[in-house]
Amino acid sequence: MSHEKYQSLVQTLHECMEACNHCYDACLGEDDVKMMADCIRLDRECSDMCGFLEQALVRGTPFASELASVCASICEACGNECKKHDHDHCQKCADACLKCADECRKIA
Amino acid sequence: MSHEKYQSLVQTLHECMEACNHCYDACLGEDDVKMMADCIRLDRECSDMCGFLEQALVRGTPFASELASVCASICEACGNECKKHDHDHCQKCADACLKCADECRKIA
Amino acid sequence: MSHEKYQSLVQTLHECMEACNHCYDACLGEDDVKMMADCIRLDRECSDMCGFLEQALVRGTPFASELASVCASICEACGNECKKHDHDHCQKCADACLKCADECRKIA
Amino acid sequence: MSHEKYQSLVQTLHECMEACNHCYDACLGEDDVKMMADCIRLDRECSDMCGFLEQALVRGTPFASELASVCASICEACGNECKKHDHDHCQKCADACLKCADECRKIA
Repeated sequence: MSHEKYQSLVQTLHECMEACNHCYDACLGEDDVKMMADCIRLDRECSDMCGFLEQALVRGTPFASELASVCASICEACGNECKKHDHDHCQKCADACLKCADECRKIA
Repeated sequence: MSHEKYQSLVQTLHECMEACNHCYDACLGEDDVKMMADCIRLDRECSDMCGFLEQALVRGTPFASELASVCASICEACGNECKKHDHDHCQKCADACLKCADECRKIA
Repeated sequence: MSHEKYQSLVQTLHECMEACNHCYDACLGEDDVKMMADCIRLDRECSDMCGFLEQALVRGTPFASELASVCASICEACGNECKKHDHDHCQKCADACLKCADECRKIA
Repeated sequence: MSHEKYQSLVQTLHECMEACNHCYDACLGEDDVKMMADCIRLDRECSDMCGFLEQALVRGTPFASELASVCASICEACGNECKKHDHDHCQKCADACLKCADECRKIA
């Protein structure tokens, strides 16, 4: 079935969704929340988009390529914002996002 | 605030999401469900995407344009499929989808 | 159709989802973001839940009552947090959430 | 962090979400779609709820217990419907749903 060819991407999206939500949760608990505001915003954008694309791919959406293209943009933006911050959760999130952006681009 | 400029689109997306879900529900209750299979699939794709874009626009997403572009494609595909069927719920859904595709394209 | 009996609730959920996202967006732009952290968290919980329940009701979910019961809890928690803050967006959000909690409880 | 205690449940929810979407996709391709209509409906209910709860748990939602309780009901209903059908995708989905219902009940 068509969803099998996306098995690796679905796993990567799932890990990115988790990393973004962990980062979101941790950012909101930081002392300087204000400095993390863009990170919080992008974490939500990115986790929502990754979760959406996961669902779409495993149900065999005909729009895989177009959705993956937007997802790549969002992951890249989130990864680049997270990279600016030294927190461990931000660095982990940046890695997950940039990896996910690369994999999304392969089917975009 | 930025979300105000999208007020009309948010309403259109909401109406399209409703029409797609009504059509989905009704298609699954039709005698000839098999003939409606593509309609059911696209109704779900479209209602999920419209619901996603609604949320994104009202929280001030920086990805409004890219998301609206994908949404326009999905709405158009769903509208074109629905147009083929005489059921009242399909015709109403086609109208809502094609209107929504047009409005999405304006910001895409 | 079954979705017609929920027409008023769907509208209320939609308004609550919007108010929560506006509040979320505005809270992240406030000078004292740290003071708004719980508000930001609950705004996301609540907007996501309201959006989810909207979709479920209009597609004729058999789980309307159970989902509305959880939604009522989340709306109430968000409304009570927002009420503590003087910002206009928080006060508007509190009103929308508490109204929505009441309407959800009627079908719960 | 709080999300760590839900690591196993998140994995189970993810597998259930996948099984439901595979079953949904396959049901819509069966010859006798009409016989699968309830299965299709419940697959969507269940995959959407599992995806929603996954996101909520990994962002540290304060509503884990209430959401897991509804999710358990939905998983159980979907599993019981799928069990009635001999298709391999239905049997796999039934297993995934009933396992997920059990795990959700543990935190409900």
